Amino acid sequence: QGADVEVLYTKEHGIVPNTKQDSTRAVVELIEKAVRSGNKKIVFAPGTYHFYPEMAHEAYTFISNNDEGLKRVVFPLFGANNIEIDGQGADFVFHGGINPFILQDSANITLRNFSIDFYRAFHSEGKILAVGDGYMDLHIPEIFPFRINAAGILEFLAADDIRPSKIEKNIKLERRLTTKKAEEYAFKRMLEYDPETRATPYMAGDLHSGHWLSAKKLEGHRNIRIFHPVLKGTVGNIMTFSSKYRRFPGFVVSDSSEVLLDNITIYHAGGMGVLGQRCHNFTMQNSKVTPSEGRIISATADATHFNNCTGKVALINNLFENQQDDATNIHGIYAMFYELLDEHTAYIKTMHPQQWGFDFIDVGDEMELVHGKSLRTYGTNTIQSVTRINKEINLVRFDKPIDSRIKPGDSISEIRDYPFVHIKGNTIRRNRARGMLLNCRGKTIVEDNYFHVPGAALLFEGDAVNWYEQGGVTDVTIRNNVFDNSLFSVWGKAIIDVDAGIEKAFQAEVRYNKNILIENNTFNVFDERLILDIFSVENLRFTNNTINKTTAFPERELTTEPFFRVKHSDNVIIADDNKFVGFD
Amino acid sequence: QGADVEVLYTKEHGIVPNTKQDSTRAVVELIEKAVRSGNKKIVFAPGTYHFYPEMAHEAYTFISNNDEGLKRVVFPLFGANNIEIDGQGADFVFHGGINPFILQDSANITLRNFSIDFYRAFHSEGKILAVGDGYMDLHIPEIFPFRINAAGILEFLAADDIRPSKIEKNIKLERRLTTKKAEEYAFKRMLEYDPETRATPYMAGDLHSGHWLSAKKLEGHRNIRIFHPVLKGTVGNIMTFSSKYRRFPGFVVSDSSEVLLDNITIYHAGGMGVLGQRCHNFTMQNSKVTPSEGRIISATADATHFNNCTGKVALINNLFENQQDDATNIHGIYAMFYELLDEHTAYIKTMHPQQWGFDFIDVGDEMELVHGKSLRTYGTNTIQSVTRINKEINLVRFDKPIDSRIKPGDSISEIRDYPFVHIKGNTIRRNRARGMLLNCRGKTIVEDNYFHVPGAALLFEGDAVNWYEQGGVTDVTIRNNVFDNSLFSVWGKAIIDVDAGIEKAFQAEVRYNKNILIENNTFNVFDERLILDIFSVENLRFTNNTINKTTAFPERELTTEPFFRVKHSDNVIIADDNKFVGFD
Ligand SMILES: [Ca+2]
Repeated sequence: QGADVEVLYTKEHGIVPNTKQDSTRAVVELIEKAVRSGNKKIVFAPGTYHFYPEMAHEAYTFISNNDEGLKRVVFPLFGANNIEIDGQGADFVFHGGINPFILQDSANITLRNFSIDFYRAFHSEGKILAVGDGYMDLHIPEIFPFRINAAGILEFLAADDIRPSKIEKNIKLERRLTTKKAEEYAFKRMLEYDPETRATPYMAGDLHSGHWLSAKKLEGHRNIRIFHPVLKGTVGNIMTFSSKYRRFPGFVVSDSSEVLLDNITIYHAGGMGVLGQRCHNFTMQNSKVTPSEGRIISATADATHFNNCTGKVALINNLFENQQDDATNIHGIYAMFYELLDEHTAYIKTMHPQQWGFDFIDVGDEMELVHGKSLRTYGTNTIQSVTRINKEINLVRFDKPIDSRIKPGDSISEIRDYPFVHIKGNTIRRNRARGMLLNCRGKTIVEDNYFHVPGAALLFEGDAVNWYEQGGVTDVTIRNNVFDNSLFSVWGKAIIDVDAGIEKAFQAEVRYNKNILIENNTFNVFDERLILDIFSVENLRFTNNTINKTTAFPERELTTEPFFRVKHSDNVIIADDNKFVGFD
Repeated sequence: QGADVEVLYTKEHGIVPNTKQDSTRAVVELIEKAVRSGNKKIVFAPGTYHFYPEMAHEAYTFISNNDEGLKRVVFPLFGANNIEIDGQGADFVFHGGINPFILQDSANITLRNFSIDFYRAFHSEGKILAVGDGYMDLHIPEIFPFRINAAGILEFLAADDIRPSKIEKNIKLERRLTTKKAEEYAFKRMLEYDPETRATPYMAGDLHSGHWLSAKKLEGHRNIRIFHPVLKGTVGNIMTFSSKYRRFPGFVVSDSSEVLLDNITIYHAGGMGVLGQRCHNFTMQNSKVTPSEGRIISATADATHFNNCTGKVALINNLFENQQDDATNIHGIYAMFYELLDEHTAYIKTMHPQQWGFDFIDVGDEMELVHGKSLRTYGTNTIQSVTRINKEINLVRFDKPIDSRIKPGDSISEIRDYPFVHIKGNTIRRNRARGMLLNCRGKTIVEDNYFHVPGAALLFEGDAVNWYEQGGVTDVTIRNNVFDNSLFSVWGKAIIDVDAGIEKAFQAEVRYNKNILIENNTFNVFDERLILDIFSVENLRFTNNTINKTTAFPERELTTEPFFRVKHSDNVIIADDNKFVGFD
């Protein structure tokens, strides 16, 4: 970067803010032009820009932990080198089923100083008017279009925001598209929020409503009654309908290196805010995931999420709030031995549908061969050849004979330059589920963060039976954080929690997570539930932390000893220097 | 063909009939091997073969009038030359979301002597037990799995027919896949059938139920009550739930030439039985589209359908029955002038979602420029360059200036070697909707066929406002056919019908369909409704036909003159030599 970088001002390329016009084509063409030569800084004028799917770039994309598909992309950074996009405070508003940013096979990419939002969110919300036996009454604001169809079923709809054009509106065609577009706004479950705290209420969890509900109109504009035995909630609270799909994450960063997101605001994403996969050296700093005016939800899934990355993953001085899943999850991927063909070859299957198409087995890669149920590593082997059968299955030949203990159903994962994970100075609050999932074998430092989350604030996961996410930390420092009245709901057993998918029979023998130092943190807690719950861990030191008693929420009955539970672990030290303040 | 053709016997390639094993991988590999060298005849041993998606070939495919997507293909004939597949009577059974045959860029392909079926149909059926105000009681046979979920909504499900493997069943993963797979079995509307006649009942039409219905279990195994104000039907009849999607057509033939289907039975397809697009010289003969034991529906859409084909389309001596749409539709495609950029260039948009991705505008192609609302051709122009923006939109540059009368919303279509259409000796019966849609400008001969269909037996369509199908016949002979008590329901106004999408204001001036000879046919009719209803036609002769009065169905009140209606047409002759037998 530096002297060789040419600056392109968008206003000189027909890209004008603060009109209702569609800027998509002009932006795609400017990006494509910049990518062809590289070494460009693209500078937007401040103001609001609108983007529609019709004129966007198209590419089939597999996005780990989100939904694959043929995407319409506004900022297609494919094969880009040394590109900076400076929004200068611009607001990018996306209309309909459209993907804001996809980076693929790119290097030295900086995105800064802009926001992204969707005109119509992919989730929906309503205000609770009344609750009864098997029903709930809601007021649905205008910004969440819906209809109750002739079958008496609630359907959320796209907004009536078709691309400005000179074509006469064709009613028949529009009707066909209305039905098609409505699929994007389908829901899968429900969750309540308190408009005062802007968080999920004490002990509120997901309502497993399924995708469709019987409903009827009530008196009053946009007031409806929905029916389901699981419905419960508090009048005045906000009921959210969680998005069924994750088709439109905000920033997808694939197979790219040296990527910086700086001063970005993600008001909404139809999926994760940021998804990094197989990328090297990624930093997000001074950024926000936060809902826009009138909504309680920001991203419809995790704020950020990283799969099989290397080098560094840094999250510095960000605000992650109101996303409908964790603030981050940094892990690898397990795939399964599906069929063993001979001593050297096997069909390997990626198991989770949102991992299908995830290409991570390459010639020369060193892999660990893993007993699926225990997550015990038998040893390593190197890839001699790989043939993709389809997005689920690869035919893989190994250099050495496959360990004879491997059986169909066991797993494989990539040994790699596990990234240095640096999570510093972030605020994580008011989201659904957990704070951060630490599943990376590289050095991991979590410091100076503030957590106010309904589930576990920090979770060590990893399993090869359900999510197929490779975890197992080896060097973690958790220091100088404030864990503020977290774990006030159902997503987790402790503020710092281990939930590795090791079958019970094997937990005594396996040490999956190792070398964890928890020091100098503040835990504000409203009861004596678990601060730390671990199993199959080796070397953990909990020292010099302060635990303050609060009255933020009602105390709950204990089902364990207070504060700490340690099972099947070696060398775990809960030091005497921890301070407990305000307990009887 | 001939001396150079090598014969490959499947049994010598590990493909064994009459086991429960999955033959997919072995078949894909044999096909791929045969395609690499060409000039092969693949001979199956008689018996039943099973195919599952896991090990199938994968390709993203745009299939006109069906649903695009990333497909799993068992017989991937991509770039194949001189390949014959002889099933010797084999039965190919497909499990789950899988595409049997896709031919792409292939030549000299013969498929013969086998059947295709799906273990679980993509539609569902039930027996009507009772009907009341706003509800219907059904018994759903075992072969159509379903559940009524906790919200009280009916969901049809995939069969429990996962691929045989050595992997332990994982309940959590299976549950996730169950929900995902269930989407393939969604419905969009309902239609009744009479188990005695095996056809739709007199005057029965689609019930526009939408995709979801409230339901509850009743006493009795697999007996349910569904709720919707449109429900009506006769106790004892079969109610069918029409498939929402068309993702799994039986045979897709794209950009291929000299293709013969001979003695093929299509018991089921999740979409059309055969879809030909941009192909040259296609013949289907001695074949059947017919439901398998226990089902009333065969293909869930048209039996056959051809878009922008050239050379010849021949349908000879086939049985097309119980498919949920027309027996055939042979047409071209209109696309729309979306934005005019300058004298020579425009954005062209394909309008119907099931035409998206249809590539038909190529450099050097001669195109007609068409006034959308009247279907009047302004003239022709030639393509100088074309740039695909995405599956909907191409940037097109023309050799000559674009006709100044062209406005955004007008259309474009390819002038080509319109095929000779030969439809001879077929039986078309018991399907939903119409018999055959004749929308081809090449010589069209329809002879020696038997029609017993609920709608129009022959329809001349074409429009650039709704379906965007290019029609406008120029040379049609309809002779020696039996039209047997057709038009007994709602799909059409006459047995031979014109329904071109010409706006009323332009019908007087346009002559869209031309040169139609209807001679020596037998029309068995149960009332005096229209045999022929035409507008905007030039040169039609209806001669030497016999019209017999039957008592097959109750007579209906007339809303037109009897038998013939001719509007806005020139040189239409209803000759004196037609015989009317049995009328008062
Ligand atoms: Ca062409």
